[in-house]
Amino acid sequence: MENFNFYSPTEFIFGKQRENECGSYVKKYGGNKVLIHYGSKSAVESGLLDRVKASLTKENIDFVELGGVQPNPRDTKIYEGIEICRKENVDFILSVGGGSCIDSSKAIAIGALYDGDFWDFYGTGKIVERALPIGTVLTIAAAGSEASGGSVVTKEEGMLKRDTGSDLLRPRFSILNPELTCTLPAYQTACGVTDIMAHVFERYFTNTLEVEVTDRLCEGLLLTLLKEAPRVINEPNNYEARANIMWAGTVAHNDIVGVGRSQDWNSHAIEHELSGLYDCAHGAGLAVVMPAWMEFVCDHNVMRFAQMAVRVFGCEMNFENPKETAMKGIKAFRKFLHEIGMPINFKELGAREEDIPVLVKNLGIKDKTWGFKPLSAEDVTQILKIAVRAEV
Amino acid sequence: MENFNFYSPTEFIFGKQRENECGSYVKKYGGNKVLIHYGSKSAVESGLLDRVKASLTKENIDFVELGGVQPNPRDTKIYEGIEICRKENVDFILSVGGGSCIDSSKAIAIGALYDGDFWDFYGTGKIVERALPIGTVLTIAAAGSEASGGSVVTKEEGMLKRDTGSDLLRPRFSILNPELTCTLPAYQTACGVTDIMAHVFERYFTNTLEVEVTDRLCEGLLLTLLKEAPRVINEPNNYEARANIMWAGTVAHNDIVGVGRSQDWNSHAIEHELSGLYDCAHGAGLAVVMPAWMEFVCDHNVMRFAQMAVRVFGCEMNFENPKETAMKGIKAFRKFLHEIGMPINFKELGAREEDIPVLVKNLGIKDKTWGFKPLSAEDVTQILKIAVRAEV
Repeated sequence: MENFNFYSPTEFIFGKQRENECGSYVKKYGGNKVLIHYGSKSAVESGLLDRVKASLTKENIDFVELGGVQPNPRDTKIYEGIEICRKENVDFILSVGGGSCIDSSKAIAIGALYDGDFWDFYGTGKIVERALPIGTVLTIAAAGSEASGGSVVTKEEGMLKRDTGSDLLRPRFSILNPELTCTLPAYQTACGVTDIMAHVFERYFTNTLEVEVTDRLCEGLLLTLLKEAPRVINEPNNYEARANIMWAGTVAHNDIVGVGRSQDWNSHAIEHELSGLYDCAHGAGLAVVMPAWMEFVCDHNVMRFAQMAVRVFGCEMNFENPKETAMKGIKAFRKFLHEIGMPINFKELGAREEDIPVLVKNLGIKDKTWGFKPLSAEDVTQILKIAVRAEV
Repeated sequence: MENFNFYSPTEFIFGKQRENECGSYVKKYGGNKVLIHYGSKSAVESGLLDRVKASLTKENIDFVELGGVQPNPRDTKIYEGIEICRKENVDFILSVGGGSCIDSSKAIAIGALYDGDFWDFYGTGKIVERALPIGTVLTIAAAGSEASGGSVVTKEEGMLKRDTGSDLLRPRFSILNPELTCTLPAYQTACGVTDIMAHVFERYFTNTLEVEVTDRLCEGLLLTLLKEAPRVINEPNNYEARANIMWAGTVAHNDIVGVGRSQDWNSHAIEHELSGLYDCAHGAGLAVVMPAWMEFVCDHNVMRFAQMAVRVFGCEMNFENPKETAMKGIKAFRKFLHEIGMPINFKELGAREEDIPVLVKNLGIKDKTWGFKPLSAEDVTQILKIAVRAEV
């Protein structure tokens, strides 16, 4: 196991109707003037936003609002938020939405206390030194942004998707009410599950040996998702299944299952180019990329893929031919994604083979990426070609 | 799943030689005048204490020392610590040792800022309102106190063992260097593993339905321990196995695998009377109590024990007779404990059947305990009788 630090100071407030307590948590964590940042109209129409405002008002906390965050959140909206924060002396951002909304909030949190352009911190490794505190009321189990210090946003000009990260961006609190996810369309639910699985797999595929504890925890999360995802697709109002998925999504990305081991985030990086170019859902892009990536890198460590096949997908181990077992596991993953309604190839995603050179170019690989198996531009081309033609 | 809050703000600093950084973490978390609280002579003789002091000195942090914490830490030592803290204006406690040392530190942390007797908070439910901040350098993977807000200490008069808990008692940071555990005698290592397994099982046996995610995470930790414990017993210097056990011990008790479900801490409560009366190792007492408790309560939910047997101990499911599978799992657990060198009955522990009435009386059960299966005094008597005669 490698040396590591693990620090996850976010307070998680989980369960039915907990959003009604958001005012007291904003108060607990020092907020006096709040920017409520939200995304879709559903937060308004469902009455969620009214409940949030009522809770703030009950605690005599003043607030301003900024809605309209899009999936793959845009810099234009972020600049708007930064402007409001400065003008209104906002000292706390309350993010009501999914990963896009929270990531947008984090960018605003950076920009509000920074003299230059917030974009300076994205894709550059520049260290975040100050940020407004954030709280979240999560409405989609997916991105794990409610538990992480990461943020991914998109520059509209050129649709460039870039990320940043800092412990300063970890939310002070995150309210997780699984009821709020019951109204999500099946497609978005499945996209969320796919994103969560990707967060686990990108930790699972490692070159670090002897990491049984995090291996087993990763496998536990994946087994949970295999059980619960089909249930919520068939019974959208199944609170218990929603709750298991929601906590899995949080644990999957606060890094407690990924510490002390090398990780591989190439699937996420490749996918960001797909959703950047086509504005598709991030989870849908991952469903197309990730199994293709697995097939391409399988030979790098066949036994690790065989372990996944046996422990997660319940495949029989073929002791004479572990590669066959490994490939069966990958096939089972793709079949699962198909069954929960995800696209599994370019056509189903709405992507085009002729764009591959652009996608690869946008990734901007100089020599090779880093990770479980470092990839050249040519490798990514091969992965995307597998993704073009994938079938269950 | 039940509603819950989860808050684990401790920073974990994990890996080789990390104790050399303790000074910078004390500084980061505001310590200026430190009480170094430690237990056995081994911390001195191994040079660990010197390294800790050097690290504090490097940061110009002043310190005083108090060693000699015993297993089942005593109130007498705690009063001594409180006295020192008051006299020397200590503002930070650095605990260098295992669970006993950390629990003793937490009691001192409470007492130093409280006008009355620290014992007021133990076994009474009285709420802790202030406590000095604590950091830890962990030397035994076992109690999980490095990641929890709990503390269990013993009043010498009558050898009463009582507990308290508060988020204020969660360490600000915990340094976990698996190397420090390599010199532990096999018996102590096995005691630690048993304690960790008990922390998981006491969360695993629940009356809350539909908690797949925490079930799976619990099982992942248990599987890890089944693999790694025999390795460290046979190869004490196996760093990787030590590391897996150490992280498992922390995750097992910061409650991330126990949230949203009812739990059952009766085995711990019963064991506290054993180690209170005989001053035996806590883990050793648990090895005797826990399988006996399992046999006694098995009928309360046979399928849950069958799940443990199949998923954790790899038993074949007997679909015609799940009880047989359940009992096989419990047998496998006891056999495992025996194989890592733990006592499994009263005689091996050094306990006496004729003391059962005293042990039961000390527990002070009024009507019934709470938990997976609430226990009457008569139930506890039955459990201890099973423990008297247990065999592999």
